[in-house]
Amino acid sequence: MSAVDLKGRDLIVTQEWTLDELQAVLDLAVRMKKDRYGFTRVLKDRTFFMFFYNPSVRTRQSFECAATELGGHAQFLEPKSMRLKTAKTAGETIEDAARVMSRYACGLGIRILEDKVGAYGEGDALVREYAKWAAIPVVSMAHDKYHPCQGLADVMGWIEWLGPEGGFDPGGLKGKKLLMTWGHGALARSWSSVQEAILIGSRFGMDVTLAHPEGYDLDPDVIRWTRENCEANGAAFEITNDVRAGYEGAHVVYSRHWMSPDAYKDGEFLKQAEIERALKLTDWICDSGKMALTDNAIFTHPMPIDRGHEVTDEVASGERSCIYDVAENRLHVQKAVMALTMGAEG
Amino acid sequence: MSAVDLKGRDLIVTQEWTLDELQAVLDLAVRMKKDRYGFTRVLKDRTFFMFFYNPSVRTRQSFECAATELGGHAQFLEPKSMRLKTAKTAGETIEDAARVMSRYACGLGIRILEDKVGAYGEGDALVREYAKWAAIPVVSMAHDKYHPCQGLADVMGWIEWLGPEGGFDPGGLKGKKLLMTWGHGALARSWSSVQEAILIGSRFGMDVTLAHPEGYDLDPDVIRWTRENCEANGAAFEITNDVRAGYEGAHVVYSRHWMSPDAYKDGEFLKQAEIERALKLTDWICDSGKMALTDNAIFTHPMPIDRGHEVTDEVASGERSCIYDVAENRLHVQKAVMALTMGAEG
Amino acid sequence: MSAVDLKGRDLIVTQEWTLDELQAVLDLAVRMKKDRYGFTRVLKDRTFFMFFYNPSVRTRQSFECAATELGGHAQFLEPKSMRLKTAKTAGETIEDAARVMSRYACGLGIRILEDKVGAYGEGDALVREYAKWAAIPVVSMAHDKYHPCQGLADVMGWIEWLGPEGGFDPGGLKGKKLLMTWGHGALARSWSSVQEAILIGSRFGMDVTLAHPEGYDLDPDVIRWTRENCEANGAAFEITNDVRAGYEGAHVVYSRHWMSPDAYKDGEFLKQAEIERALKLTDWICDSGKMALTDNAIFTHPMPIDRGHEVTDEVASGERSCIYDVAENRLHVQKAVMALTMGAEG
Repeated sequence: MSAVDLKGRDLIVTQEWTLDELQAVLDLAVRMKKDRYGFTRVLKDRTFFMFFYNPSVRTRQSFECAATELGGHAQFLEPKSMRLKTAKTAGETIEDAARVMSRYACGLGIRILEDKVGAYGEGDALVREYAKWAAIPVVSMAHDKYHPCQGLADVMGWIEWLGPEGGFDPGGLKGKKLLMTWGHGALARSWSSVQEAILIGSRFGMDVTLAHPEGYDLDPDVIRWTRENCEANGAAFEITNDVRAGYEGAHVVYSRHWMSPDAYKDGEFLKQAEIERALKLTDWICDSGKMALTDNAIFTHPMPIDRGHEVTDEVASGERSCIYDVAENRLHVQKAVMALTMGAEG
Repeated sequence: MSAVDLKGRDLIVTQEWTLDELQAVLDLAVRMKKDRYGFTRVLKDRTFFMFFYNPSVRTRQSFECAATELGGHAQFLEPKSMRLKTAKTAGETIEDAARVMSRYACGLGIRILEDKVGAYGEGDALVREYAKWAAIPVVSMAHDKYHPCQGLADVMGWIEWLGPEGGFDPGGLKGKKLLMTWGHGALARSWSSVQEAILIGSRFGMDVTLAHPEGYDLDPDVIRWTRENCEANGAAFEITNDVRAGYEGAHVVYSRHWMSPDAYKDGEFLKQAEIERALKLTDWICDSGKMALTDNAIFTHPMPIDRGHEVTDEVASGERSCIYDVAENRLHVQKAVMALTMGAEG
Repeated sequence: MSAVDLKGRDLIVTQEWTLDELQAVLDLAVRMKKDRYGFTRVLKDRTFFMFFYNPSVRTRQSFECAATELGGHAQFLEPKSMRLKTAKTAGETIEDAARVMSRYACGLGIRILEDKVGAYGEGDALVREYAKWAAIPVVSMAHDKYHPCQGLADVMGWIEWLGPEGGFDPGGLKGKKLLMTWGHGALARSWSSVQEAILIGSRFGMDVTLAHPEGYDLDPDVIRWTRENCEANGAAFEITNDVRAGYEGAHVVYSRHWMSPDAYKDGEFLKQAEIERALKLTDWICDSGKMALTDNAIFTHPMPIDRGHEVTDEVASGERSCIYDVAENRLHVQKAVMALTMGAEG
């Protein structure tokens, strides 16, 4: 890993980091998981800013814990308490906000998606605007397009469950099949976690099958990159509208709801319409019948789970469910990312 | 204290801990009060989650300080920013939330009472549901039934004021009389602090008199336990509707408003009706005339005080008021509870 | 500096501290800026309370960072989550709140201004009420009258830019001219920063010109003190309603919007009326034409800036703009104030 220097780097999507860089994060995360309180000098007395345009359970808890365990402190900031300039109100520009924050903190995390954007891509643009002006690393804590720390936690968990026993080998995902399948549900969820998952899964050599009802296409750029990633690895990439076909031979099943491309219209987030539309597609649930078609696949989900819609209790709480391990890994990969990009001693 | 091992234990009500266990907390709290910054390795770089369904002054300040002084960090979390499942909305189950939090934190505090529950007992059920699934200790930060850390701070303060000089002897409360009296007021307060106080006071050998207007009965289970506690110690337990009688011979006077058993109806918290009803009972105030009937009693209150309703300024700010010492003790007993249940080295 | 002992002192306005005391703060701030993480024992494991009646960007970030970098922790508290007594509702008195907080924390910061007061001066009275009862130092984090930490950061930045190279000499502002000029804008800002700036600028020997449209007079007491400060130093103090005259010969130009004395009426904050009135005075903007009249002045502003109203982008982002350095200095002067007034070892 001597060739990898991530100091000062932004993390907006894993696709923009090399495989060596991603493996360096995983290697460090594995060490940090084994030695939980052995890295407490890394951000000693330093501050990480967390900007939550949208609230979150897992992300706030895991990032704030991560900073604490590295010896530092994560400030929980909600832009509603900031006088930022918007289309409608006077306030501070992102340039000014980011340049001042760079004087105070060692890094900045941003979460913006769902109802806090008016069109798909606005969140990504905002994160990149902060990154443009900030002299400190900017890390996505989930935005409308990507969720890089979730993606890293996903593959770390899958390798732990599927890799060779007694070690941690990122190569362990080569040739394994990931089924990313849409689930119906009473929420209208962003594309960030699912897009990140197929991108990073395909980077690590997995075959990928994407299954969803008609009308639930993801971002064409992400589809293209995933295809390219698979081709580069000699792996398969398929898209199907069949609720069952993708399960065959799968090693990892990821069932999650996501909104349709119609969710935003004229700057509005049509949450209720999305929920009503999605609730009708009751076939789209991951259950033990479908799991029986797989190659003894593990079940994965970024949580929180909408149980009874996305997946049955039987599968989510079953013995092949890796959900709690993946959730825990959020902590470890985020510590590793912070250490490598913001750490006092690299 | 070698027999006492509290590592991993929940604290939902002091009644569920043995007297030895409670004394172990007080002993450590006394040591921590003397050596305020001498225990900073106990939660070093560890995270304690605080779940505030209801806001709070004292509790947030004292728990967050406690974690800081033990070398750790308390995350301030409000469930409104969590996508938890409710009767009406999709979201995460408590099982999932608690199991993931157990991967991140060393302990979990929960506060839920008043308008955040629809019926007396719902808060207690929720705290116990978290405790059922969490692998980490759950501590009540006040819920509709109990407030264990307040109870511990109360007896610590009363012992400091009433015990033998030059030492701290939990036996010092034996044979002392506690008057717990209702006070009128412009708030509709939960039963948690007053129920905890008569439970823990009776555990430590005090005679207990409970005084309130007709229609302000407390939880029958708590009354029964208090009576059993008193009987086991050969102490007296009385209930009176006389505003004055209980003051005679009292060593500790605790005057506080609490809501009536009619405060919840059909899932609604009838705050305004409670306030109007209570404001009429203007006799029910602790004043110096009534205090003159006591055996030079100290005045105690968990704060915040509704001065002019629950108690006069003369008594609350008088030289026999122990309110600020009890408030300070919240910090010390909470540090001790955290150290004993969650501490890195027990 | 051996004569300076600030342990336990409140900081409500710099005018109430001696010049030696202010210089002691600046001297320590300069040392802390050079050795950013060299003072991490000062508040080790101690708690600083931040009371934000009004939200804030810079102030929250910089105070919370300051406590973290001193080894302690700043609790972010919003009085809306406190049950404090108000004219309309029952709750805790400031006496009780302040006396209890003194048992938990090493210091208390308070921010209250704009819509959270009903008349100019109420915020100052509230801060002083807390200071009266608190046994710990109270620091203004900006209130309706003053903003002492901003004032200290201002002069620290101006000295860095205008003083002799290779050193930091508070005497470097003697004989330099400060233009404090009103700017139009879409906000209704308090007088705190601008009043603090002319007070502290005049303490350090600057000539001061105050320029504003008719009807935008500041507090007469502040004007009187500024005049007295200038007279004591043999410096000039002028007030003008001419938008241009004050720029001549200026070394520091501070262009900022402030509300008129009519902003509060019958306990209401007439924000919208203020904004409409101010937006018409479009001449009142700091631009490069006006800056050309100065003696190569630096541009200063406490941020956030309302660009395009108070100042043009060209000036605010120009090479004589010291805004980011001044913003950074908030961190250093606040660390120094906390260390000197609250520090474990003074």
